[in-house]
Amino acid sequence: MAEEKTSKSLLSSIDLPQDLKQLQPEQLPQVCEEIREEIIDVLSQNPGHLGSSLGAVELAVALHYVYNTPEDRIVWDVGHQAYAHKILTGRREAFHTNRKYGGIRPFPTPLESKYDTCTCGHASNAISIGLGMAVAAKNQHSDRKVVAVIGDGAMSGGLAFEGLNNVSTTPNDMLIILNDNAMSIDRSVGGMKQYLLHLHTSPTYNNLRFRAAKRFESWGWLTEKRKRAILRFNNSIKSLLFNQQNMFEGFDIRYFGPTDGNDVQGLVRIISEIKEMKGPKLLHVHTIKGKGYKAAEKDQALWHAPGRFNPNTGERIASGSQEKPPKYQIVFGETLLELAKTNDKIIGVTPAMPTGCSMDIMMKEMPERTFDVGIAEGHAVTFSAGMAKDGLVPFCNIYSTFAQRAYDHIIHDAAILNLPVVLCLDRAGLVGEDGPTHHGAFDMAALRPIPNLTIASPMDERELRRLMYTAQLPDKGTFVIRYPRGASEHVDWRCELEEIEVGKGRKLKDGDSVAVITIGPIGNTASKAIEVAESQAKAKGCEHTVAHYDLRFLKPLDEVLLNEVGSHYKKVLTIEDGVREGGMGSAVLEYMADHKFTPETIRLGLPDHFVEHGDISTLYNKVGLDTSHIANVLLQLLLS
Amino acid sequence: MAEEKTSKSLLSSIDLPQDLKQLQPEQLPQVCEEIREEIIDVLSQNPGHLGSSLGAVELAVALHYVYNTPEDRIVWDVGHQAYAHKILTGRREAFHTNRKYGGIRPFPTPLESKYDTCTCGHASNAISIGLGMAVAAKNQHSDRKVVAVIGDGAMSGGLAFEGLNNVSTTPNDMLIILNDNAMSIDRSVGGMKQYLLHLHTSPTYNNLRFRAAKRFESWGWLTEKRKRAILRFNNSIKSLLFNQQNMFEGFDIRYFGPTDGNDVQGLVRIISEIKEMKGPKLLHVHTIKGKGYKAAEKDQALWHAPGRFNPNTGERIASGSQEKPPKYQIVFGETLLELAKTNDKIIGVTPAMPTGCSMDIMMKEMPERTFDVGIAEGHAVTFSAGMAKDGLVPFCNIYSTFAQRAYDHIIHDAAILNLPVVLCLDRAGLVGEDGPTHHGAFDMAALRPIPNLTIASPMDERELRRLMYTAQLPDKGTFVIRYPRGASEHVDWRCELEEIEVGKGRKLKDGDSVAVITIGPIGNTASKAIEVAESQAKAKGCEHTVAHYDLRFLKPLDEVLLNEVGSHYKKVLTIEDGVREGGMGSAVLEYMADHKFTPETIRLGLPDHFVEHGDISTLYNKVGLDTSHIANVLLQLLLS
Repeated sequence: MAEEKTSKSLLSSIDLPQDLKQLQPEQLPQVCEEIREEIIDVLSQNPGHLGSSLGAVELAVALHYVYNTPEDRIVWDVGHQAYAHKILTGRREAFHTNRKYGGIRPFPTPLESKYDTCTCGHASNAISIGLGMAVAAKNQHSDRKVVAVIGDGAMSGGLAFEGLNNVSTTPNDMLIILNDNAMSIDRSVGGMKQYLLHLHTSPTYNNLRFRAAKRFESWGWLTEKRKRAILRFNNSIKSLLFNQQNMFEGFDIRYFGPTDGNDVQGLVRIISEIKEMKGPKLLHVHTIKGKGYKAAEKDQALWHAPGRFNPNTGERIASGSQEKPPKYQIVFGETLLELAKTNDKIIGVTPAMPTGCSMDIMMKEMPERTFDVGIAEGHAVTFSAGMAKDGLVPFCNIYSTFAQRAYDHIIHDAAILNLPVVLCLDRAGLVGEDGPTHHGAFDMAALRPIPNLTIASPMDERELRRLMYTAQLPDKGTFVIRYPRGASEHVDWRCELEEIEVGKGRKLKDGDSVAVITIGPIGNTASKAIEVAESQAKAKGCEHTVAHYDLRFLKPLDEVLLNEVGSHYKKVLTIEDGVREGGMGSAVLEYMADHKFTPETIRLGLPDHFVEHGDISTLYNKVGLDTSHIANVLLQLLLS
Repeated sequence: MAEEKTSKSLLSSIDLPQDLKQLQPEQLPQVCEEIREEIIDVLSQNPGHLGSSLGAVELAVALHYVYNTPEDRIVWDVGHQAYAHKILTGRREAFHTNRKYGGIRPFPTPLESKYDTCTCGHASNAISIGLGMAVAAKNQHSDRKVVAVIGDGAMSGGLAFEGLNNVSTTPNDMLIILNDNAMSIDRSVGGMKQYLLHLHTSPTYNNLRFRAAKRFESWGWLTEKRKRAILRFNNSIKSLLFNQQNMFEGFDIRYFGPTDGNDVQGLVRIISEIKEMKGPKLLHVHTIKGKGYKAAEKDQALWHAPGRFNPNTGERIASGSQEKPPKYQIVFGETLLELAKTNDKIIGVTPAMPTGCSMDIMMKEMPERTFDVGIAEGHAVTFSAGMAKDGLVPFCNIYSTFAQRAYDHIIHDAAILNLPVVLCLDRAGLVGEDGPTHHGAFDMAALRPIPNLTIASPMDERELRRLMYTAQLPDKGTFVIRYPRGASEHVDWRCELEEIEVGKGRKLKDGDSVAVITIGPIGNTASKAIEVAESQAKAKGCEHTVAHYDLRFLKPLDEVLLNEVGSHYKKVLTIEDGVREGGMGSAVLEYMADHKFTPETIRLGLPDHFVEHGDISTLYNKVGLDTSHIANVLLQLLLS
């Protein structure tokens, strides 16, 4: 580590915010330093979201120092920023278990701590949640305070705007802190970013104006009417001086800043001063993502969530050998570029995940044909629909869980007209350490009822390539391809691109007793489980065998395949890595019932509760979707 | 009608925009007048969206006059405004069939006309769609123009903001027309409205500045760099002079206006002038909702979609007698107020539908406990979640189809913590004339997979009252109640409020051969069908009878009820007014399969295609969910 190690003399005495409050303001920088070290040390061994959390250390310290938490509510927008908050609220000892199975949760949640106020895995919800809490406080005649802390990336989300739009007209005393590091996960984009960049006013001027306002208010000179007039006049002057338009003040939200969000004493001072002001207000702070860790400051996208690393040298520790199958996302990214080279109608669209979904591969070579639209999943789909209507073939890549934000846009803007939008849902199925807010559990069940959609899930990376190739051929309509996080199956993944007939599954293995139907890469687990079960059955003198079908398309269903299963097998086992309610197994049940087939059908899939966080293999074990659980079910079926 | 009738001498010669272009600008006011008369005449007999369309007559005429449609793209945000557009694009003769079954469609759609560019039933999508089309034009080296026309109400939607945010940084030459009538369906709300109200600049100043810019540009003096600097300087001056912040120019979108959107010659002039300008631009026009029809100008909410009326007197024609059962929405509105009087934790939340869902009843008596958040369904839910987290019990009422916009918010912000948000989905099932974009078809299938949710649908208005009462009792968690558009069942609907056990269905009728399971008000149709089928069967000498169960709760399922059905009946018929894929019938299949029951099960529900528009009874007949279809299915089951 570049910095000298100091003894953690202050932090060791802080268990809860009340301990923090015993300190003098001058001691806070050291607390920040110690928290930062703690985060770097722990994350170097136990990977997590490094960059945002390093940037927001001072914010967390200042807020807990000034406010009376948990009575006052701090609403963190996306828990990435909140590691310091965790360390300060009773979870320092447990922090090394962060994101591990059974350990503390990846994002703040009231299920874990009374200092956590809401679910904060998906961006842009803090203003709306905070406004709800501010209204509740008013309704209950409580003067507890509400602070929403939102990143500039999250400000590009429509929900944040809907929140702002209502904050300005609903009576409330909320403070919104805009934590501006000019990055979301990659760089933030769009007019909001441009806009924020231009908001650099003179600190002296701001300071002056702010102090004057405080003084006038304390003297009772500032009536509401006068305040507004003065505000407008101020803005006009500022506009003239600094060539800027202040959108927030356009919305009648009092704007303070920008100020240095990594100066903890400055933050404490300004937050203390505006804390008691009536009406909604916004404090704009500049922070540095990765602050205090040089490598992370330098390459902020890489160090958003860097995996394991050597804290002293900043060297990232690669896990395993080079000869591994690539991640699905790499296969997506490379194949997209390959297709785009031959089909000039192809366009790439990502809501703030160019690195996460590997669209950056195409972006580098074809910047004019790729669009990072910011954290704005709804727009990503509707914008794609507009392009598709006029002859392009957009590949819109969204993490499965975030695509929930675009549910209506998929129905209303793409599916009704069956426009050729290729919707690639990365991170489908369980995602592991990011936990319940991030699992891609609902996509199949939620999308299956939508008319016109084609919905496919590849069993391996070669199938992914073929499906991507198929989806961009003419007249394929709205085409969903869902695939998981993590590594694919084969090292030599770069197969020929060839069309897969839409709605056509495949038989992987014949059998005489039980038919297994899978969709997506869980089929590989199933294959192994079938081998295990057949050999265990054989050991018990049972010679029956299991057939395995890869359904491949959730919609349209392969009727030939299902007729074969329905007429040849008395026992059917369906296996999917999505929710059981309404999922692929349910589609099979529907088909069998509609066609008067009556096999005994067992459906395996995700349970009807939110699945916790942890490493993927543990989670699949816990939900009964690993090889041994599946083999056990199969063995019972074979022997019964 | 207050206005003198004129002969439709101009309009009768206009079939397509090319005919309109033959006219002189001076003739356009008369064209507008004639179109307006046509709309009023037709809508007085054949109800539709009167107010918005009257306001936007001049816009439609001016756009088709100036632009080369359909080569140039006009993207209407919400087709309410687009009746004049329809009349001008080959649908004048058919306009009297607007919204009728088999007639022209309620909202513009490319399925009907090449002049229609996208699906426009849900608000706020035009900017994103338009941007997609502008990118496609650039990609194809075409200089076709794209114009997005969006109302001020729709501007409060997050999607519109996401669009704007991207318009400002994506290279495009799109024109956005902000059609500002200070109303969405009721009044528009939020900061955006306040903001727009303040945007009243001096026309002379604007005009001056605009002409200077044109001149400089034609002389080649205006480079991009200079343009920006001048823009900023202009804005600062404007800010100083008029006490305003221009959010759009803050986003680097050139702003023109506000101008009179009901002055067709003025519109033609300004649109012609800005048409060829490079870069994104926004023209802000003021229009009067209901323009040209005095009654509609006066009470704009009432005349948004007034039903039938006498065009001469402005008298609305009530259909049927006074002694009818009330609409479900009235029962909701009255019961909400009744509950709110006894439970002071109850809060009402509606995204721009206080009249449509009858929350205006509570709003009048308890303005401080009701929130119209504007067209912002995501915020409505997340804001409700914030209040629920801090002890309130929000009743958040959203039309079923619009709740698709809040799918992630329901999962992430409410369901994960099982917060006591009571989500009331009005307009569930088929809605009739508003057609495929508005049917509440997907709610049950989409929400059923979400853990923690309670999902109920009342068979009549008394059940609705009891469910609402139940939902607000302590510890009920996130509670969804879906109910249809239109009239309920009983005149004397004001029953006692009593708790219904969560997850408890009821047996309405015993039988010995077939079990019918229904959910929601389709149960009433089923009841009649059972009577018909039993008597027809009897006439054929079959004495078997049909049992009828009202499942009431889609989630959690009534296991006692389903065990009874599974163990007593060989034939089961499920009936629902939602999609068959993944819906209630699917839940029954899953339960039967999981518990080794093997009844023959037939599922009736909405088909796997988007259902067209038309009167509700015709539609239910077409999808096989009317009494006679159901009775036929039952008869076959009884006789088989």
